[in-house]
Amino acid sequence: MSKLNNLKDLFTHLLQDMYFAENKIKAELPKMAEKATNPKLKKGFEKHLEETKDQISKLEKVFEITGIEKDKEKCEAILGLLEEGKGLIKESAEGAVRDSALIAAAQKVEHYEIASYGMLCNMGKLLGYNDAAEILHEILEQEKATDEKLTSMCDEIEEEAMKKAA
Amino acid sequence: MSKLNNLKDLFTHLLQDMYFAENKIKAELPKMAEKATNPKLKKGFEKHLEETKDQISKLEKVFEITGIEKDKEKCEAILGLLEEGKGLIKESAEGAVRDSALIAAAQKVEHYEIASYGMLCNMGKLLGYNDAAEILHEILEQEKATDEKLTSMCDEIEEEAMKKAA
Repeated sequence: MSKLNNLKDLFTHLLQDMYFAENKIKAELPKMAEKATNPKLKKGFEKHLEETKDQISKLEKVFEITGIEKDKEKCEAILGLLEEGKGLIKESAEGAVRDSALIAAAQKVEHYEIASYGMLCNMGKLLGYNDAAEILHEILEQEKATDEKLTSMCDEIEEEAMKKAA
Repeated sequence: MSKLNNLKDLFTHLLQDMYFAENKIKAELPKMAEKATNPKLKKGFEKHLEETKDQISKLEKVFEITGIEKDKEKCEAILGLLEEGKGLIKESAEGAVRDSALIAAAQKVEHYEIASYGMLCNMGKLLGYNDAAEILHEILEQEKATDEKLTSMCDEIEEEAMKKAA
Protein backbone atom coordinates (compact mmCIF):
# COMPACT_ATOMS: atom_id res chain seq x y z
CA MET A 1 0.00 0.00 0.00
CA SER A 2 1.24 3.45 -0.80
CA LYS A 3 1.94 5.77 2.11
CA LEU A 4 2.38 8.88 -0.02
CA ASN A 5 -1.01 9.72 -1.47
CA ASN A 6 -0.65 13.38 -2.33
CA LEU A 7 1.82 16.25 -2.59
CA LYS A 8 1.56 17.04 1.12
CA ASP A 9 2.64 13.49 1.96
CA LEU A 10 5.62 13.81 -0.37
CA PHE A 11 6.52 17.23 1.10
CA THR A 12 6.31 15.70 4.60
CA HIS A 13 8.60 12.83 3.62
CA LEU A 14 11.20 15.12 2.02
CA LEU A 15 11.08 17.53 4.96
CA GLN A 16 11.60 14.73 7.50
CA ASP A 17 14.43 13.44 5.29
CA MET A 18 16.21 16.77 5.57
CA TYR A 19 15.67 16.90 9.31
CA PHE A 20 17.41 13.54 9.52
CA ALA A 21 20.12 14.68 7.07
CA GLU A 22 20.92 17.97 8.87
CA ASN A 23 21.30 16.13 12.16
CA LYS A 24 23.74 13.67 10.55
CA ILE A 25 25.66 16.57 8.96
CA LYS A 26 25.83 18.31 12.35
CA ALA A 27 27.51 15.20 13.78
CA GLU A 28 29.99 14.99 10.89
CA LEU A 29 31.12 18.62 10.58
CA PRO A 30 33.29 18.76 13.73
CA LYS A 31 35.22 15.73 12.45
CA MET A 32 35.67 17.41 9.07
CA ALA A 33 36.91 20.63 10.72
CA GLU A 34 39.36 18.58 12.78
CA LYS A 35 40.77 16.84 9.71
CA ALA A 36 41.21 20.04 7.68
CA THR A 37 44.71 21.56 7.50
CA ASN A 38 44.04 24.82 5.62
CA PRO A 39 42.91 27.36 8.27
CA LYS A 40 40.29 28.95 5.98
CA LEU A 41 38.77 25.54 5.28
CA LYS A 42 38.83 24.57 8.96
CA LYS A 43 37.10 27.83 9.84
CA GLY A 44 34.63 27.29 7.00
CA PHE A 45 33.55 23.95 8.46
CA GLU A 46 33.27 25.43 11.96
CA LYS A 47 31.12 28.24 10.60
CA HIS A 48 28.97 25.81 8.66
CA LEU A 49 28.41 23.79 11.84
CA GLU A 50 26.86 26.87 13.45
CA GLU A 51 24.79 27.44 10.33
CA THR A 52 23.65 23.81 10.35
CA LYS A 53 22.48 24.12 13.96
CA ASP A 54 20.54 27.21 12.93
CA GLN A 55 19.07 25.33 9.95
CA ILE A 56 17.88 22.58 12.29
CA SER A 57 16.04 25.24 14.31
CA LYS A 58 14.64 26.65 11.07
CA LEU A 59 13.33 23.19 10.11
CA GLU A 60 11.74 22.88 13.55
CA LYS A 61 10.00 26.19 12.86
CA VAL A 62 8.74 24.77 9.55
CA PHE A 63 7.31 21.73 11.37
CA GLU A 64 5.62 24.08 13.82
CA ILE A 65 4.13 26.39 11.18
CA THR A 66 2.85 23.60 8.94
CA GLY A 67 1.66 21.34 11.75
CA ILE A 68 3.68 18.49 10.23
CA GLU A 69 5.02 16.01 12.75
CA LYS A 70 8.64 16.77 13.68
CA ASP A 71 10.12 13.45 12.81
CA LYS A 72 13.26 12.11 11.19
CA GLU A 73 12.84 9.95 8.11
CA LYS A 74 15.91 7.76 7.61
CA CYS A 75 17.61 9.20 4.56
CA GLU A 76 19.70 6.61 2.72
CA ALA A 77 21.06 9.27 0.39
CA ILE A 78 22.78 11.34 3.07
CA LEU A 79 24.13 8.18 4.70
CA GLY A 80 25.64 7.14 1.36
CA LEU A 81 27.03 10.62 0.72
CA LEU A 82 28.65 10.81 4.15
CA GLU A 83 29.96 7.22 3.91
CA GLU A 84 31.50 7.99 0.54
CA GLY A 85 33.03 11.21 1.88
CA LYS A 86 34.49 9.46 4.92
CA GLY A 87 36.13 6.85 2.67
CA LEU A 88 37.61 9.52 0.43
CA ILE A 89 38.98 11.50 3.38
CA LYS A 90 40.41 8.41 5.05
CA GLU A 91 42.26 7.36 1.91
CA SER A 92 43.75 10.82 1.35
CA ALA A 93 47.21 11.87 2.49
CA GLU A 94 47.15 14.56 5.19
CA GLY A 95 47.43 18.18 4.09
CA ALA A 96 46.34 19.65 0.76
CA VAL A 97 45.17 16.32 -0.71
CA ARG A 98 42.95 15.59 2.28
CA ASP A 99 41.71 19.19 2.17
CA SER A 100 40.76 18.70 -1.49
CA ALA A 101 38.95 15.47 -0.55
CA LEU A 102 37.13 17.30 2.25
CA ILE A 103 35.98 19.96 -0.22
CA ALA A 104 34.81 17.26 -2.66
CA ALA A 105 32.86 15.46 0.07
CA ALA A 106 31.33 18.71 1.33
CA GLN A 107 30.32 19.94 -2.12
CA LYS A 108 28.53 16.69 -2.88
CA VAL A 109 26.55 17.12 0.34
CA GLU A 110 25.85 20.80 -0.40
CA HIS A 111 24.44 19.91 -3.82
CA TYR A 112 22.24 17.28 -2.25
CA GLU A 113 20.87 19.93 0.07
CA ILE A 114 20.47 22.48 -2.74
CA ALA A 115 18.42 19.96 -4.74
CA SER A 116 16.31 19.04 -1.72
CA TYR A 117 15.58 22.54 -0.44
CA GLY A 118 14.87 23.73 -4.00
CA MET A 119 12.16 21.09 -4.28
CA LEU A 120 10.81 21.69 -0.77
CA CYS A 121 10.56 25.42 -1.50
CA ASN A 122 8.61 24.84 -4.66
CA MET A 123 6.28 22.26 -3.12
CA GLY A 124 5.79 24.42 -0.04
CA LYS A 125 4.63 27.34 -2.19
CA LEU A 126 2.24 25.12 -4.18
CA LEU A 127 0.79 23.81 -0.91
CA GLY A 128 0.21 27.38 0.30
CA TYR A 129 2.80 27.15 3.10
CA ASN A 130 4.14 30.58 2.24
CA ASP A 131 5.89 31.34 5.54
CA ALA A 132 7.44 27.89 5.61
CA ALA A 133 8.54 28.26 1.98
CA GLU A 134 10.25 31.51 2.91
CA ILE A 135 12.24 29.80 5.68
CA LEU A 136 13.14 26.95 3.34
CA HIS A 137 14.30 29.55 0.80
CA GLU A 138 16.57 31.12 3.44
CA ILE A 139 18.17 27.72 4.07
CA LEU A 140 18.53 27.17 0.31
CA GLU A 141 20.37 30.47 -0.06
CA GLN A 142 22.69 29.58 2.86
CA GLU A 143 23.55 26.25 1.24
CA LYS A 144 24.26 27.92 -2.10
CA ALA A 145 26.55 30.45 -0.38
CA THR A 146 28.41 27.60 1.37
CA ASP A 147 28.87 25.82 -1.94
CA GLU A 148 30.25 29.01 -3.51
CA LYS A 149 32.64 29.53 -0.59
CA LEU A 150 33.95 25.98 -1.03
CA THR A 151 34.42 26.59 -4.77
CA SER A 152 36.35 29.79 -4.07
CA MET A 153 38.83 27.86 -1.87
CA CYS A 154 39.17 25.02 -4.34
CA ASP A 155 41.85 26.26 -6.73
CA GLU A 156 44.34 27.35 -4.09
CA ILE A 157 44.07 24.06 -2.19
CA GLU A 158 44.01 21.84 -5.27
CA GLU A 159 47.03 23.58 -6.80
CA GLU A 160 48.92 22.72 -3.65
CA ALA A 161 47.65 19.13 -3.80
CA MET A 162 48.88 18.88 -7.38
CA LYS A 163 52.48 19.50 -6.35
CA LYS A 164 52.52 16.43 -4.10
CA ALA A 165 54.58 13.51 -5.38
CA ALA A 166 52.99 10.19 -6.27
CA MET B 1 48.23 3.94 4.49
CA SER B 2 46.81 6.59 2.22
CA LYS B 3 46.09 5.58 -1.36
CA LEU B 4 45.42 9.12 -2.57
CA ASN B 5 48.70 10.98 -2.46
CA ASN B 6 48.12 13.83 -4.88
CA LEU B 7 45.48 15.61 -6.95
CA LYS B 8 45.82 13.13 -9.82
CA ASP B 9 44.97 10.26 -7.44
CA LEU B 10 41.90 12.15 -6.23
CA PHE B 11 40.85 12.95 -9.81
CA THR B 12 41.24 9.25 -10.68
CA HIS B 13 39.10 8.19 -7.73
CA LEU B 14 36.33 10.70 -8.54
CA LEU B 15 36.39 9.78 -12.24
CA GLN B 16 36.10 6.05 -11.49
CA ASP B 17 33.29 6.90 -9.04
CA MET B 18 31.33 8.56 -11.82
CA TYR B 19 31.97 5.66 -14.19
CA PHE B 20 30.41 3.39 -11.57
CA ALA B 21 27.59 5.89 -10.96
CA GLU B 22 26.65 6.36 -14.64
CA ASN B 23 26.46 2.60 -15.12
CA LYS B 24 24.12 2.29 -12.14
CA ILE B 25 22.00 5.18 -13.45
CA LYS B 26 21.83 3.50 -16.86
CA ALA B 27 20.37 0.41 -15.18
CA GLU B 28 17.82 2.45 -13.21
CA LEU B 29 16.47 4.80 -15.90
CA PRO B 30 14.39 2.24 -17.85
CA LYS B 31 12.59 1.35 -14.59
CA MET B 32 11.95 5.04 -13.91
CA ALA B 33 10.58 5.55 -17.44
CA GLU B 34 8.31 2.55 -16.95
CA LYS B 35 6.91 3.90 -13.66
CA ALA B 36 6.24 7.42 -15.02
CA THR B 37 2.65 8.27 -16.02
CA ASN B 38 3.09 11.73 -17.53
CA PRO B 39 4.14 11.18 -21.18
CA LYS B 40 6.60 14.11 -21.17
CA LEU B 41 8.30 12.73 -18.05
CA LYS B 42 8.39 9.20 -19.49
CA LYS B 43 9.95 10.53 -22.68
CA GLY B 44 12.39 12.62 -20.62
CA PHE B 45 13.70 9.53 -18.82
CA GLU B 46 13.98 7.63 -22.11
CA LYS B 47 15.93 10.50 -23.64
CA HIS B 48 18.17 10.75 -20.58
CA LEU B 49 18.92 7.02 -20.87
CA GLU B 50 20.35 7.63 -24.35
CA GLU B 51 22.30 10.59 -23.01
CA THR B 52 23.65 8.49 -20.13
CA LYS B 53 24.89 5.85 -22.57
CA ASP B 54 26.62 8.63 -24.51
CA GLN B 55 28.12 9.97 -21.25
CA ILE B 56 29.53 6.52 -20.46
CA SER B 57 31.27 6.60 -23.86
CA LYS B 58 32.50 10.11 -23.10
CA LEU B 59 33.97 8.89 -19.77
CA GLU B 60 35.67 6.04 -21.63
CA LYS B 61 37.21 8.66 -23.93
CA VAL B 62 38.45 10.55 -20.85
CA PHE B 63 40.09 7.36 -19.54
CA GLU B 64 41.72 6.88 -22.93
CA ILE B 65 43.01 10.46 -23.24
CA THR B 66 44.39 10.67 -19.70
CA GLY B 67 45.78 7.12 -19.61
CA ILE B 68 43.87 6.56 -16.36
CA GLU B 69 42.75 2.97 -15.85
CA LYS B 70 39.12 2.47 -16.92
CA ASP B 71 37.81 1.11 -13.69
CA LYS B 72 34.71 1.42 -11.55
CA GLU B 73 35.16 2.66 -7.98
CA LYS B 74 32.21 1.56 -5.86
CA CYS B 75 30.33 4.76 -5.13
CA GLU B 76 28.33 4.60 -1.89
CA ALA B 77 26.76 7.97 -2.61
CA ILE B 78 25.00 6.95 -5.81
CA LEU B 79 23.88 3.68 -4.22
CA GLY B 80 22.33 5.65 -1.35
CA LEU B 81 20.73 8.17 -3.70
CA LEU B 82 19.20 5.44 -5.86
CA GLU B 83 18.09 3.44 -2.82
CA GLU B 84 16.40 6.51 -1.38
CA GLY B 85 14.77 7.26 -4.71
CA LYS B 86 13.47 3.70 -5.08
CA GLY B 87 11.93 3.84 -1.60
CA LEU B 88 10.23 7.16 -2.36
CA ILE B 89 8.84 5.91 -5.66
CA LYS B 90 7.63 2.63 -4.15
CA GLU B 91 5.75 4.43 -1.38
CA SER B 92 4.04 6.85 -3.77
CA ALA B 93 0.57 6.36 -5.19
CA GLU B 94 0.54 5.81 -8.95
CA GLY B 95 0.04 8.83 -11.19
CA ALA B 96 0.95 12.43 -10.41
CA VAL B 97 2.27 11.69 -6.89
CA ARG B 98 4.60 8.99 -8.16
CA ASP B 99 5.64 11.28 -11.03
CA SER B 100 6.51 13.99 -8.47
CA ALA B 101 8.53 11.41 -6.50
CA LEU B 102 10.31 10.36 -9.69
CA ILE B 103 11.24 13.99 -10.38
CA ALA B 104 12.50 14.40 -6.79
CA ALA B 105 14.63 11.25 -7.04
CA ALA B 106 16.00 12.26 -10.44
CA GLN B 107 16.85 15.81 -9.39
CA LYS B 108 18.81 14.60 -6.38
CA VAL B 109 20.83 12.37 -8.70
CA GLU B 110 21.31 15.19 -11.23
CA HIS B 111 22.66 17.49 -8.53
CA TYR B 112 25.06 14.78 -7.41
CA GLU B 113 26.34 14.58 -10.95
CA ILE B 114 26.51 18.36 -11.35
CA ALA B 115 28.66 18.59 -8.18
CA SER B 116 30.90 15.73 -9.31
CA TYR B 117 31.45 16.84 -12.90
CA GLY B 118 32.02 20.44 -11.77
CA MET B 119 34.86 19.24 -9.54
CA LEU B 120 36.27 16.87 -12.16
CA CYS B 121 36.29 19.68 -14.73
CA ASN B 122 38.18 21.99 -12.42
CA MET B 123 40.70 19.35 -11.33
CA GLY B 124 41.17 18.17 -14.92
CA LYS B 125 42.08 21.71 -16.02
CA LEU B 126 44.53 22.12 -13.13
CA LEU B 127 46.14 18.81 -14.05
CA GLY B 128 46.56 19.98 -17.67
CA TYR B 129 44.08 17.47 -19.07
CA ASN B 130 42.52 20.12 -21.30
CA ASP B 131 40.82 17.83 -23.81
CA ALA B 132 39.46 15.62 -21.03
CA ALA B 133 38.23 18.70 -19.13
CA GLU B 134 36.38 19.79 -22.25
CA ILE B 135 34.57 16.44 -22.48
CA LEU B 136 33.75 16.58 -18.75
CA HIS B 137 32.39 20.08 -19.31
CA GLU B 138 30.11 18.79 -22.07
CA ILE B 139 28.72 16.16 -19.68
CA LEU B 140 28.28 18.82 -16.99
CA GLU B 141 26.23 20.98 -19.37
CA GLN B 142 24.06 17.99 -20.32
CA GLU B 143 23.35 17.25 -16.66
CA LYS B 144 22.44 20.88 -15.99
CA ALA B 145 20.08 20.87 -18.98
CA THR B 146 18.42 17.67 -17.69
CA ASP B 147 17.96 19.24 -14.27
CA GLU B 148 16.35 22.31 -15.86
CA LYS B 149 14.03 20.15 -17.94
CA LEU B 150 12.91 18.34 -14.78
CA THR B 151 12.31 21.67 -13.03
CA SER B 152 10.22 22.90 -15.97
CA MET B 153 7.92 19.85 -15.66
CA CYS B 154 7.66 20.11 -11.90
CA ASP B 155 4.86 22.62 -11.40
CA GLU B 156 2.38 21.01 -13.77
CA ILE B 157 2.88 17.55 -12.27
CA GLU B 158 2.98 18.71 -8.65
CA GLU B 159 -0.17 20.80 -9.06
CA GLU B 160 -1.92 17.65 -10.19
CA ALA B 161 -0.44 15.70 -7.26
CA MET B 162 -1.76 18.37 -4.89
CA LYS B 163 -5.36 17.69 -5.90
CA LYS B 164 -5.17 14.06 -4.77
CA ALA B 165 -7.09 13.24 -1.63
CA ALA B 166 -5.34 12.10 1.53
